[in-house]
Amino acid sequence: MRIDIISVLPDLIKSPFQHSIIKRAIDKKLVEVHFHNLRDYAINDYGKIDDAPYGGESGMVMMIEPIDKCISKLQSERNYDEIIYMTPDAETLNQQTANTLSLKENIIILCGHYKGIDHRVRDLLITKEISIGDYVLSGGELAAAVLCDSIIRLIPGVLGNETSALSDSFQDGLLAPPVYTRPAEYKNIKVPEILLSGNFPKIDNWKSEKALERTKRIRPDLLKNQ
Amino acid sequence: MRIDIISVLPDLIKSPFQHSIIKRAIDKKLVEVHFHNLRDYAINDYGKIDDAPYGGESGMVMMIEPIDKCISKLQSERNYDEIIYMTPDAETLNQQTANTLSLKENIIILCGHYKGIDHRVRDLLITKEISIGDYVLSGGELAAAVLCDSIIRLIPGVLGNETSALSDSFQDGLLAPPVYTRPAEYKNIKVPEILLSGNFPKIDNWKSEKALERTKRIRPDLLKNQ
Repeated sequence: MRIDIISVLPDLIKSPFQHSIIKRAIDKKLVEVHFHNLRDYAINDYGKIDDAPYGGESGMVMMIEPIDKCISKLQSERNYDEIIYMTPDAETLNQQTANTLSLKENIIILCGHYKGIDHRVRDLLITKEISIGDYVLSGGELAAAVLCDSIIRLIPGVLGNETSALSDSFQDGLLAPPVYTRPAEYKNIKVPEILLSGNFPKIDNWKSEKALERTKRIRPDLLKNQ
Repeated sequence: MRIDIISVLPDLIKSPFQHSIIKRAIDKKLVEVHFHNLRDYAINDYGKIDDAPYGGESGMVMMIEPIDKCISKLQSERNYDEIIYMTPDAETLNQQTANTLSLKENIIILCGHYKGIDHRVRDLLITKEISIGDYVLSGGELAAAVLCDSIIRLIPGVLGNETSALSDSFQDGLLAPPVYTRPAEYKNIKVPEILLSGNFPKIDNWKSEKALERTKRIRPDLLKNQ
């Protein structure tokens, strides 16, 4: 899989790609991530990529021309399955979308910044808009890093133990059950006795019950959607 | 405001704090962000902070002792308004939560990693659990960075123009209207004529209509919650 990230601040999200699971996925060549600085496609020598919005609002808007030039250059080099724009006013990312995107070959992720991007970019160039949640960030960069993380960890071979992703929250529509590790007692507080019993069928039942119980209490909306 | 982030991989999210709006907020001393490497509180000289889960599941679980030691040390130095654990099985972050947290003085953010943390940490030490969305990440670090970004940009004085945050998506329960900037015509595609009219009351009406229309189309659930 190849991911091209277009941003005015690519350095802002360099570190998440230089550590841990994403780094190992890149090192193993399971994914390629390329950063493109939008200022390299600016409309003048001063690196201009934004301008004031029409209609008298505050803030700055990213111009269509640099984005069009950057995306066109990438498209001239290979085909892309999706050209994604990270923005809070879009459908919300969920595990199903992450699963679907993890099967793609080439995707472009465009990070908005400032007050957003000229809407013509969205009408003409973008094939999919994704929000990571109902809150506003100072730019789309962190949202792009979140999307990449959610996708990359699902690529086969990325996680050491593939069952690990399967027992995550949301993969079965439920929150994960509580987990415990050593010591069995810490400052007088013990782990649930059943987990020490060695009776695995019973333990599995307990986990299913707890997963359902926690989902009912914390996120009842997940049950309604099933 | 002071934010203490506890993580096994603090370097993973260093870069988002070294650029753009968050960096400027730190430089202006509007917020202090401190990173704590959980391995400095490990239970042995090998830096052990995790162990296999009870009950025979795959993956590793973060132990209670290092987390307890780290949080206790911080609490001995000052009072904290919230001790937040980033986890997908929690209430979902929204703009209202970001607004509320932006008014706090001191918060701790604990990033989970691997299969999660010993549940006793959540029962005993954590005051608030936050998910950034219904998807799984390889760790809580990016989620913590997202939470910080959503909070820090709301601290008065952080955004150059304070009206900028007020016209964001979600602040009024609606998605933002489309924005456009120069050129007025690009490859034969024009910006909506009304935005060039200079008739600001009409433009404001148009923006309100578009905000409502886009919310109805893309996120009708937001209207039901009002």
